[in-house]
Amino acid sequence: MQKTRIGILGYGNLGKGVEFAIRQNPDMELTAVFTRRAPETLRIATPGVNVYGADMMERMRGSIDVLILCGGSATDLPEQGPACAALFNTVDSFDTHAKIPEYFAAVDRAARSGSNVAIISVGWDPGMFSLNRLYANCILPEGKDYTFWGEGISQGHSDAIRRIEGVVDGKQYTIPVPDALEAVRGGGSPDLTPRQSHTRHCFVVAEPGADKARIEREIRTMPNYFSDYNTTVNFVTQEELDRDHGRMPHGGFVLRRGTTGSGTNHLIEYSLKLDSNPEFTANVLVAYARAANRLASGKAVGAKTVFDIPPAWLSPKTDEELRKTML
Amino acid sequence: MQKTRIGILGYGNLGKGVEFAIRQNPDMELTAVFTRRAPETLRIATPGVNVYGADMMERMRGSIDVLILCGGSATDLPEQGPACAALFNTVDSFDTHAKIPEYFAAVDRAARSGSNVAIISVGWDPGMFSLNRLYANCILPEGKDYTFWGEGISQGHSDAIRRIEGVVDGKQYTIPVPDALEAVRGGGSPDLTPRQSHTRHCFVVAEPGADKARIEREIRTMPNYFSDYNTTVNFVTQEELDRDHGRMPHGGFVLRRGTTGSGTNHLIEYSLKLDSNPEFTANVLVAYARAANRLASGKAVGAKTVFDIPPAWLSPKTDEELRKTML
Repeated sequence: MQKTRIGILGYGNLGKGVEFAIRQNPDMELTAVFTRRAPETLRIATPGVNVYGADMMERMRGSIDVLILCGGSATDLPEQGPACAALFNTVDSFDTHAKIPEYFAAVDRAARSGSNVAIISVGWDPGMFSLNRLYANCILPEGKDYTFWGEGISQGHSDAIRRIEGVVDGKQYTIPVPDALEAVRGGGSPDLTPRQSHTRHCFVVAEPGADKARIEREIRTMPNYFSDYNTTVNFVTQEELDRDHGRMPHGGFVLRRGTTGSGTNHLIEYSLKLDSNPEFTANVLVAYARAANRLASGKAVGAKTVFDIPPAWLSPKTDEELRKTML
Repeated sequence: MQKTRIGILGYGNLGKGVEFAIRQNPDMELTAVFTRRAPETLRIATPGVNVYGADMMERMRGSIDVLILCGGSATDLPEQGPACAALFNTVDSFDTHAKIPEYFAAVDRAARSGSNVAIISVGWDPGMFSLNRLYANCILPEGKDYTFWGEGISQGHSDAIRRIEGVVDGKQYTIPVPDALEAVRGGGSPDLTPRQSHTRHCFVVAEPGADKARIEREIRTMPNYFSDYNTTVNFVTQEELDRDHGRMPHGGFVLRRGTTGSGTNHLIEYSLKLDSNPEFTANVLVAYARAANRLASGKAVGAKTVFDIPPAWLSPKTDEELRKTML
């Protein structure tokens, strides 16, 4: 069997997750890791695989079937997504929902210029949650959607806390309001405000002598991030933060309540409970790398999303096996 | 806008559900209903639409884009599936899991002979449950699957009760064992026997003077259907059965628990709570009729399953709208 040769760009939590995910998929192999750090400073987990500077990517074009981009959406991917799609088939986890159309267009142009396929916004939201929104909306055209996130650590909200003067470090947990979830499950289609849907719990390390009352006020009144929610702020030491809040759990719920023909009522619910947000995302990326390779083998070009990919293409099994074992 | 012209074959609960589902999809219209009963005895809910005998189907070839087959899997579809796929693009809900490979082959041959597309085994299991098994297995290659059905009425088990001597009528509810579901949700990967996974509750109308003790014993000891489960049998009058058990709720849960790279633990859960099994199935069929029409417009031929269909093709929205609103 010819294995699919995977490259990784960026060796943070997500990149490490991809490295481990490849080991769970016998039809794939890790070929190279690219980094913007000094390559010799990186120690990766896979023996015999080289680490290269990002400037070496172009020379590796013939040796990699799919490059998985493991950078962040704020500054890395807007630049790396198009640049890499011009050189390789790519998969990424771009997750700034509002900027997806613009990002898609830029990556699509680049991928077409290089005759490559680029699957963007892969992961769980966007990704598996998006798929479940889509399927549920197509099945129940008359209905109402609900998405709850958590319990888990929100990177964006944690970053927002850390930008406040006097804050050394911080983590923010997003938690669905149990009554809201139960109201939907119990048969209702409530209109829920942000405050009714989620609570936000912050763990903050303050500088010695900082005005904690001011920090707490700035967090709780921060527009968009916190002011529309019931927010609790707990001050902890750096040691406590590292010990008790060093993991990266996340998850959430996508629900659609809808009615059919005679007015009967239906509930579709999808949920994830993840002990490691980056490792789970990495596993989704690797499954879609298989699809990217298959698309490219079929001469497809341009940007794609999870909406465009036949589910069977994520699997190493043949169509016959899938029909026999999973349908 | 050119509407997709839908035909319905078979006007039982599922066929009626499809008729109502079409009304929820403005890009579709009902063109004809075909029946094996005397057409003049059928009163359908859509004004201006004709009811024809099934023998008229061939003459309607040019007027219908997709024919939705609403017969049963035991005797109707094995014959109708191939016969209709030779004439029309079709969608059906063939749900005898063990016979899917054989059915797929027969429908595939017929569909190719007529240059048509036939999407088989559409609904929720097989259908949405299958999709969730597939996605979850591709994301978490190392893990364990669980499917729980219910609470809901199982047609097959109800039929089995009704075949017993002295039974006039009966309904069987399949109910997941709460402890089993909670064991999986709570973090475990238990090995569950049938008895540990589901209980079966039967409501039976006996003939006057029938030996109820014998009927109950025959139910509880019936191999495959009941002997491996904790089964309760309640005798009721026909009036009580019709009044309290006349609806067709169903649903269930698909879970996969798996581990990733560093041994972290993840749970993917999908569930349905349906007030009407046939109406929900009908809505799934109509969404896939849209995909069948799109496949046929792209000159695809042969049998397909939900595994082969890009999710976007179920939606009336453009790819741009989907990326903007649902990704």
